[in-house]
Amino acid sequence: MPGKRSRPTPASFEPVRETLTNRPPPKTVAIETISWRGDHVRMIDQTRLPEERVEIEIRTVPEMVEAIRALRIRGAPAIGIAGAMGLVAALHPHRDDESEAFLEALEGYASELEVARPTAVNLAWAIGRMRRVAEEHADMAPAALWERLEDEALAIHAEDLAMSRRIGEAAQEVIASHSGILTHCNAGGLATSGLGTALACAYVAHEQGKRIRVFADETRPLLQGSRLTAWELMQAGIDVTVICDDTTAATMAKGEIDLVIVGADRVAANGDAANKIGTYGVAILAKEHGIPFYVAAPRTTFDFALRTGAEIPIEERDPVEVTAGFGRRTAPEGVKVYSPAFDVTPARYVTGFITDAGLVRPPYEETLQVLR
Amino acid sequence: MPGKRSRPTPASFEPVRETLTNRPPPKTVAIETISWRGDHVRMIDQTRLPEERVEIEIRTVPEMVEAIRALRIRGAPAIGIAGAMGLVAALHPHRDDESEAFLEALEGYASELEVARPTAVNLAWAIGRMRRVAEEHADMAPAALWERLEDEALAIHAEDLAMSRRIGEAAQEVIASHSGILTHCNAGGLATSGLGTALACAYVAHEQGKRIRVFADETRPLLQGSRLTAWELMQAGIDVTVICDDTTAATMAKGEIDLVIVGADRVAANGDAANKIGTYGVAILAKEHGIPFYVAAPRTTFDFALRTGAEIPIEERDPVEVTAGFGRRTAPEGVKVYSPAFDVTPARYVTGFITDAGLVRPPYEETLQVLR
Repeated sequence: MPGKRSRPTPASFEPVRETLTNRPPPKTVAIETISWRGDHVRMIDQTRLPEERVEIEIRTVPEMVEAIRALRIRGAPAIGIAGAMGLVAALHPHRDDESEAFLEALEGYASELEVARPTAVNLAWAIGRMRRVAEEHADMAPAALWERLEDEALAIHAEDLAMSRRIGEAAQEVIASHSGILTHCNAGGLATSGLGTALACAYVAHEQGKRIRVFADETRPLLQGSRLTAWELMQAGIDVTVICDDTTAATMAKGEIDLVIVGADRVAANGDAANKIGTYGVAILAKEHGIPFYVAAPRTTFDFALRTGAEIPIEERDPVEVTAGFGRRTAPEGVKVYSPAFDVTPARYVTGFITDAGLVRPPYEETLQVLR
Repeated sequence: MPGKRSRPTPASFEPVRETLTNRPPPKTVAIETISWRGDHVRMIDQTRLPEERVEIEIRTVPEMVEAIRALRIRGAPAIGIAGAMGLVAALHPHRDDESEAFLEALEGYASELEVARPTAVNLAWAIGRMRRVAEEHADMAPAALWERLEDEALAIHAEDLAMSRRIGEAAQEVIASHSGILTHCNAGGLATSGLGTALACAYVAHEQGKRIRVFADETRPLLQGSRLTAWELMQAGIDVTVICDDTTAATMAKGEIDLVIVGADRVAANGDAANKIGTYGVAILAKEHGIPFYVAAPRTTFDFALRTGAEIPIEERDPVEVTAGFGRRTAPEGVKVYSPAFDVTPARYVTGFITDAGLVRPPYEETLQVLR
């Protein structure tokens, strides 16, 4: 779950919008994880990956709630975009309603959407942002207000894409041509508007003609690395190799890896970074092999309310994902399982943070302050 | 594939037989991986684990060859025992044959059995040992010679069990009561006569009343940790917890692990140890957390013909084990995969070798000489 935002601060999105108008449109987007089609939402059904690429069309709130709950779309930033677009799609048939009926429908849909998944803060944040637009423009005729809401949903999408691109660009000073990049889990386009955080670094390097090779840790138990990261990089024509999580050390020893780039779910004020389980081990292996270890994350991922990583709560996953995760029993009935969803990488293992505000290096207690 | 012997030296088995007569019989054997039943072989069909425990009876060479090829029995020591016992079972109906016919049958069966799996040196070694017994006693009547061969097969089994037990006992000086032990792959009873190498240390600790907790790395791609290690430890009533390979570092950071014990496939003269892929990474994580890292292996695993681990050849596994290992596609069609079967842990990470000749500590260039 890359990019889960702990402290959504709408203010931090303002400069992004400004930047958007100042720069040429992105050259390539690897995949269209989610897109707006005038009156409905189109998105890749991620539960069907990597077996087949199926796109689904969403026009109603129940359809969108089901898609979010069933993980057809996942990744905190992507879910935020889905919520906003889903709201606009559901309101499309109401454009000719009376103002009161339109606002009533909006409120009903918003309440259903914002609770589709409780942990992804972005969803509640995006719906909240749509609500505020409606409140500010409550005097508009429904048809005009609907267009204003459509603009807002598109802005949320565009801002996310711009954030990803700035992360990708900030990474280029540490990515040499002919680099081997290791990543863990999927901090990619499928979790966001299409470029991702850790993978944005690879996409931009590829666009710039750098000859990169990406090694994707499989990432048990849910295999986001082999199922999603490998899939989206192949779509973009980037050289990708899948390795099991216990093959990372041997791959580093072989000299294949020049740098590691991972995402983050939450970063404490001192630079301790929570991310998908296994990230901490990769950081240790990188240190032992003298390989730089970078964390790519937007400013919204930094939670200055937490002094250190020890304060980050770690949830545990359902043991069945380990004992019978792929439809077949792979461990004895009733065996004990320890399956935390995340681990915390202490700041001392992090060579640098690649953010939408640029590259940040130690000492983090000081340098991270620019992200506040 | 724990305990694959690179240099089978029958001489090294002699002292074991002597020890066998000097000590009381083993108190407990965790599981009967393979046993002799008077005229046939009985063994656990490991392809059915952990879903169900099914025992199969083997009376003919084609049955045994199929069982070995299909991995119903695996692990180099166990396959050696299976080959010898399979030969005796197949010869049972020939006890009343003329001498020449008996020896002809023996030679035919032996040639078929010894090539059932080419890489496990123990199989060719065990069959060779049976052949030499037949040559030495070619003047015996077939019924008497058959009994002599039966004795030899039982001796191979008993020697393996004694070897395991001596490894288990040698480990006790480094296992405190209330220890958390991490292991990788299955260097257990299922790979040997019933006690294993790394797991023998846990079985003996358990017998001695130590309150141990074992953490079993799942061990992708073939999941020997979750499928086999967890299963056999549960059978023995030992507290076992399965973790994904990317959860090892977090489990260590949590303070759950007091020591690591793994098996080895081959150890070079300088102490560099080849074992199942992932072992090297576990060794680095152990070092970073200040956790001792032990390799449990019989003397026959040490290959003094190899100066360092760089000379150990590493085979690669079939990519399909990574891309669709659970009967379901988990990575995109056609994706590149790097899947070495083993890695090499440099000697500097090994706190000690737990062998059937006792505990060996650095400097290995000197201390390992006692195993020659």
